[in-house]
Amino acid sequence: MSDKRPVVIDLRFARESVVSALRSAFKDRPVIDMGDPANADRDLTNAEFAVVWKPDQTLFRRATGLKAIFSGGAGVDHILSAYELPDLPIVRFVDRSLTDRMSEWVVWQCLHHLRNGFAYAGQQRNRIWHEIADQPEARDLTLGVMGLGVLGADAVRKLKVMGFDVIGWSRRPKTIAGVETFDATSLDAFLGRTDILVGLLPLTDDTRGIYDRALFSTLRRTGALGGPIFLNAGRGGSQKEAELTECLTDGTLKAASLDVFESEPLDPDSPLWSMPNVIITPHAAAASDVRALFRHVEGQIARAEAGKPLEFVVDRTSGY
Amino acid sequence: MSDKRPVVIDLRFARESVVSALRSAFKDRPVIDMGDPANADRDLTNAEFAVVWKPDQTLFRRATGLKAIFSGGAGVDHILSAYELPDLPIVRFVDRSLTDRMSEWVVWQCLHHLRNGFAYAGQQRNRIWHEIADQPEARDLTLGVMGLGVLGADAVRKLKVMGFDVIGWSRRPKTIAGVETFDATSLDAFLGRTDILVGLLPLTDDTRGIYDRALFSTLRRTGALGGPIFLNAGRGGSQKEAELTECLTDGTLKAASLDVFESEPLDPDSPLWSMPNVIITPHAAAASDVRALFRHVEGQIARAEAGKPLEFVVDRTSGY
Repeated sequence: MSDKRPVVIDLRFARESVVSALRSAFKDRPVIDMGDPANADRDLTNAEFAVVWKPDQTLFRRATGLKAIFSGGAGVDHILSAYELPDLPIVRFVDRSLTDRMSEWVVWQCLHHLRNGFAYAGQQRNRIWHEIADQPEARDLTLGVMGLGVLGADAVRKLKVMGFDVIGWSRRPKTIAGVETFDATSLDAFLGRTDILVGLLPLTDDTRGIYDRALFSTLRRTGALGGPIFLNAGRGGSQKEAELTECLTDGTLKAASLDVFESEPLDPDSPLWSMPNVIITPHAAAASDVRALFRHVEGQIARAEAGKPLEFVVDRTSGY
Repeated sequence: MSDKRPVVIDLRFARESVVSALRSAFKDRPVIDMGDPANADRDLTNAEFAVVWKPDQTLFRRATGLKAIFSGGAGVDHILSAYELPDLPIVRFVDRSLTDRMSEWVVWQCLHHLRNGFAYAGQQRNRIWHEIADQPEARDLTLGVMGLGVLGADAVRKLKVMGFDVIGWSRRPKTIAGVETFDATSLDAFLGRTDILVGLLPLTDDTRGIYDRALFSTLRRTGALGGPIFLNAGRGGSQKEAELTECLTDGTLKAASLDVFESEPLDPDSPLWSMPNVIITPHAAAASDVRALFRHVEGQIARAEAGKPLEFVVDRTSGY
């Protein structure tokens, strides 16, 4: 064992996935796994790095020697919004696997809505052989992707390959080759062009509750699907769920695919579960692969030890 | 009206789509639309071209002056297998729209199976919030595409962009950049590597009934999904449906997505309708857009009149 200082792990993930991934990670330094009850009262003052997902409230008070905090996911709101934080670099989890998985979910759901997945499933249940008329093709729909970070940019690229017309929105102006983009000054113009809204925003003070009735009402209503559709695979805190539910009932929205919710797990009594125009997945669009997470953290620690700056450090003022 | 000889149309498509598309097609020559009962006894000896989908048995005996026959779809089995045919060029329908639509269906269904669409829909019905463990990502699966014509090649390209490992099979050896391909001499090797089999074969004497228990039993059983999956968007005549149904029941196949059937419409009594591991669409994966069909025919006629050879002419000996 080296004389390196420990990395402390506090990941509220499926326990077995953490234990399994730790077997082959951080070979050159001690690991303090807070998921092991034996470590509950362990002295953490010597820990140099922390890898966390929804960490214990007391962690950062106890681990006073940290040099950096690594988020266990693409988002960092679970760290920023809930804790008194030391003034340390916070590093997002950016990973090919996470990105690919998110785009799988987004493309899957966009194709489901494009290709009348609900209607064909209903016909199958009723043994009805009927080709739905006026099937649009991908290029007939404009998909508006909100959030143009690593995840949004990858989704945009893959949706374009599938033939969709794609536009993008981010709070700050952003340029993506071959894609028309909008920013905070032009949100309504973006929404007015959008048939399927793909939500991939981080949760910040600016995006909390941004998906509300006013926003849904601004989406294009004259597109080839006969009504706008909403996908959210970003953060549930960005959606006003009561208004979303109303809009899905009164026709303001034609349909939705939701992977995230204001409160998770989604309440078993939520009306969303049984709505015929809603697909629900349990915050599973882009599960963090814990092995990939540890590889990413090891890579960033190696950079720091080689005197290079950390990558993917969160801007604490913008929250992402 | 020009003095050009007529084009005869015999398309067993939705009537309104043909009538609507004819309004803006073949402006420079007479059209004889066999869907119009007034044309039932019309003299067809003067017709120069025919555009057909499952045409009347007598058409080619009556239209003795034809120079070429255009199929209304990507397949030509509906012409080749059922009629005494004059020795004329038969032209397949190749079209960007048809190709894009087919790839939409294929990618949609592959993502559905990759991302546990059946299981998550079941959990939603039961209001269960549970992330399914060990979710593979696209690159963990090998998709075997059978049929490497225009449709197969486009599907291969888009599946690869989504991250899938993709291999290809065609009867005659075929090269696609970046994709390992197999041919008639190596079918078993191809199947033994395949987790999801994507059927895009034309119906010929060689492919009739090719999808049978022996073939399904050769697919890889050790892949990340826990069992092989079968997609067919080619022709129903290529599948032995009784054996397919058995294989979906006894676990030889884990699941299937079927757009085509031995007999269409699918019998309301078919057990396939209600199988929990089967998705059925009514031969709608890549509906021919009739406007695009007529544009394609006009383009080919213009080529012929300019002294150039017709494109997409079927090889009568191979049947595609």
